[in-house]
Amino acid sequence: MKPELQKLVALDRERVLVAHIASLLFWDQDTHMPSGAEEERAEQLAWLEGAAHEKAVDPEIGNLLAALGCTDEQPAGDPALDPEARAFLRVLHRIYSREVKLPADLVAETAKAQSLGQSAWVRARTDSDFSAFRPHLERMLELKRRAAACMDPSRKPYDVLLDLFEPGSDEASIRRVFDPLRGELTALLGRIRSRPQVEDSFLRKTCPKEAQTAASRYFMEVLGYDLSRGRLDVTAHPFTTTVGRSDVRITTRYDENWFLSSLFSTIHETGHALYEQGMNPPAGYEGTCLADGASMGIHESQSRMWENVVGRSRPFWSREYPALRAVLGDVLSGVALESFLKGINKVEPSLIRTEADEVTYGLHIILRFEMEADLVSGRLAVRDVPAAWNARTRDLLGIEPPNDAKGCLQDVHWSAGLFGYFPSYSLGNLYAAQFVQAMRKDLDLDDRVRDGDYAAVLGWLRKNIHASGAALLPDELCLRVTGKPLDSGHFVDYLGRKYSEIYGF
Amino acid sequence: MKPELQKLVALDRERVLVAHIASLLFWDQDTHMPSGAEEERAEQLAWLEGAAHEKAVDPEIGNLLAALGCTDEQPAGDPALDPEARAFLRVLHRIYSREVKLPADLVAETAKAQSLGQSAWVRARTDSDFSAFRPHLERMLELKRRAAACMDPSRKPYDVLLDLFEPGSDEASIRRVFDPLRGELTALLGRIRSRPQVEDSFLRKTCPKEAQTAASRYFMEVLGYDLSRGRLDVTAHPFTTTVGRSDVRITTRYDENWFLSSLFSTIHETGHALYEQGMNPPAGYEGTCLADGASMGIHESQSRMWENVVGRSRPFWSREYPALRAVLGDVLSGVALESFLKGINKVEPSLIRTEADEVTYGLHIILRFEMEADLVSGRLAVRDVPAAWNARTRDLLGIEPPNDAKGCLQDVHWSAGLFGYFPSYSLGNLYAAQFVQAMRKDLDLDDRVRDGDYAAVLGWLRKNIHASGAALLPDELCLRVTGKPLDSGHFVDYLGRKYSEIYGF
Repeated sequence: MKPELQKLVALDRERVLVAHIASLLFWDQDTHMPSGAEEERAEQLAWLEGAAHEKAVDPEIGNLLAALGCTDEQPAGDPALDPEARAFLRVLHRIYSREVKLPADLVAETAKAQSLGQSAWVRARTDSDFSAFRPHLERMLELKRRAAACMDPSRKPYDVLLDLFEPGSDEASIRRVFDPLRGELTALLGRIRSRPQVEDSFLRKTCPKEAQTAASRYFMEVLGYDLSRGRLDVTAHPFTTTVGRSDVRITTRYDENWFLSSLFSTIHETGHALYEQGMNPPAGYEGTCLADGASMGIHESQSRMWENVVGRSRPFWSREYPALRAVLGDVLSGVALESFLKGINKVEPSLIRTEADEVTYGLHIILRFEMEADLVSGRLAVRDVPAAWNARTRDLLGIEPPNDAKGCLQDVHWSAGLFGYFPSYSLGNLYAAQFVQAMRKDLDLDDRVRDGDYAAVLGWLRKNIHASGAALLPDELCLRVTGKPLDSGHFVDYLGRKYSEIYGF
Repeated sequence: MKPELQKLVALDRERVLVAHIASLLFWDQDTHMPSGAEEERAEQLAWLEGAAHEKAVDPEIGNLLAALGCTDEQPAGDPALDPEARAFLRVLHRIYSREVKLPADLVAETAKAQSLGQSAWVRARTDSDFSAFRPHLERMLELKRRAAACMDPSRKPYDVLLDLFEPGSDEASIRRVFDPLRGELTALLGRIRSRPQVEDSFLRKTCPKEAQTAASRYFMEVLGYDLSRGRLDVTAHPFTTTVGRSDVRITTRYDENWFLSSLFSTIHETGHALYEQGMNPPAGYEGTCLADGASMGIHESQSRMWENVVGRSRPFWSREYPALRAVLGDVLSGVALESFLKGINKVEPSLIRTEADEVTYGLHIILRFEMEADLVSGRLAVRDVPAAWNARTRDLLGIEPPNDAKGCLQDVHWSAGLFGYFPSYSLGNLYAAQFVQAMRKDLDLDDRVRDGDYAAVLGWLRKNIHASGAALLPDELCLRVTGKPLDSGHFVDYLGRKYSEIYGF
């Protein structure tokens, strides 16, 4: 390895190391930290974020990137370098040139506005009072438009923001995928609603936390999560966090009257963790920017593949239903496999995104995508958000929020300035369906799952998706794995086959 | 506050903040970290230690200290400054001038030798093979002699090392305290051994971990530990760690066949935590070096005061024995208060320091103090350690270790280069006895404890000892609180009164 490259690897490793330390502090904050320590923890995190930003924009990185031939036109550097070096340089150049363009005062102002915005959002949601949140949303939009202009003044701001979460995407490319999806989902929902609704009241039986914990641990382990390199804890909102390449932790939450919540959130986060645990950068590049997800959408494809495509499938429960019944005690006694399968796949328009089923979920995302595209471009004024939200909900789902808490105030994302994040959730479903189609050419997914041979499935994912980490852009990865660009048709086919069986049409 | 002083406070706060972040990583390593993450955690901690050292020796600190008139002769700076500023400057000057004199390569070499030495010690203790540890101990002694020479070439190396843990002390001052103590403890032990031994086999009844946890939590809370600013976890070796001024965590360990272990280790660590939670630097100096213990010995006085002087006393159990019996279930059924009191105060020479009673504990420490004084000065060769250890154990305690694991390899301290640390443990007992004598002039300790009015005791400690933190040197604190320098007579009196009652002489 060239000395310049070695130095860059060392600098980037330090940046990642600081980010991992910050992850531990965030994890502790949500899991174990005493309540009185909140204010100090914010100071500690601010210090670490400052240190990480300093590492990311170290002028030495800029000099070394230039010395290795990296420019905006040639982000992977000198074409004579080996492919591993070029992959590393491309990712690092992307991070460096993004961070270095943000003025320090904008970074600080944004951090402050996020903190204020999130607190204001919590209060506004509690009181279901959008007007209390409105000035914060306006401020955050202004700051994010400014950030987008700094990062790339030649592009539309929303395009720049989307690219942060889904590298290579823009509003038009997402629209090309979402536009046909919208019609298909609406049509499928119509067919489902023409059939008698399935029964799921038996899923509301009280299930003690201990039994749910045992089930969570069982499914984590059986799916291949390496517990010597991770752990399970409890938080208000489940998440996965990477504290180190051998320390990927997940959390879940327990609702004693709705055990499906912990069951599927654990499988979902296990999917994220398996991706993180499976990244395998080339020798010499361990612990660098290559050990990261290809995008938020690809990350979400891994969690949703395990949660939905595997975790809500007939082959999976043909094998695992006896184990689940055994571990949950008598909660499911008298419930036949067929009823359970229908119950966990019930489709019904509902107001809250995070509680939505596989079919209506995409409509929730399309609503947010369209609204944030309009907000960032200025086509929609912040004061008109509640009315627009309610009208679009009625339009897409046929129901209307009774208040803003159950409508435009339900998600935390905008209060933290995360415009452009929402599409990833749906892209995850689409990628998952397309990847699974490719997987089926190499192995019989249903048979492997029915036999409990999840290692075969994980092995395929490790080889084809996890190992390369951030080395490929999402569209490159999709092409390499499936031979085609992302196409929502695979997801639509998957849903059609699955739900025609469940609802009998 | 002068601008130079404000800058110094900000710089010192950053140093403390980094140390707190490192504390969280250490805590996590011992409590929750997955086993596979060991190597990465070591890298993360090394980075944080490097950052903390960098902060400690920032040349800007040196310039600002000089600008405020701090010199070795005038460590508290310009006499015209207010007392708070002078206390802060004295502590900071002490830290800065110590750290800045250590060459970077010596710091790095020592860190590496510590890591190697501790691993070698674990193996040597497992195999009970001193020869495998010998080269590491020799190396560590050499490094520590070099460090002492850098910090103060005009003093004997062991004096410099003692001063790190007990500011203001040296070998002669410790000897003045320990010499009479040795004779008194030996005489008291002789009197105790001439009497029939007390019974304690009923304390070995199996006690489930859950009951012990409940007892631990009960005693933490009842003694005034603020659980909104701390928490209790489980580790192999109990400790207290400060993650922030509002985040002081303790740990304990559970032995189902010896519940006294968790009971008294929890009360002990609670004592440390109450000290940390009670530090109260002057306004403007929060989160600086003033928010620290006056010394390791003073810290230990707080843990041992609660563990022994209060926690093993008749007034305490007169009040708490019913609560303990209730929370432990039937473990103590049929055991009278008198038997319990005698059982928990049984005195018997034993080989392992950490399991020693209040009387023989001091003899274990005197042995280590004398041995490390001889080792650092070169009067004792490392190869002669096992023979010397065994001879001195026979001499002091009348028993002899059957092997090195139960002899000179039992403690981790020397493998980590902690020469000069051991005396603090005994000094803690001595300070505690002397502080309690002073406390009794202001309040009736026995009555207050018998009434469960621990808040009165804690209030006295907060006002007289905790609040000042590191602002006073230990001998200054002792003089201010008790009117006299440290004198082992108070401890000897305390032991004599207590054990004449228990053993009836």
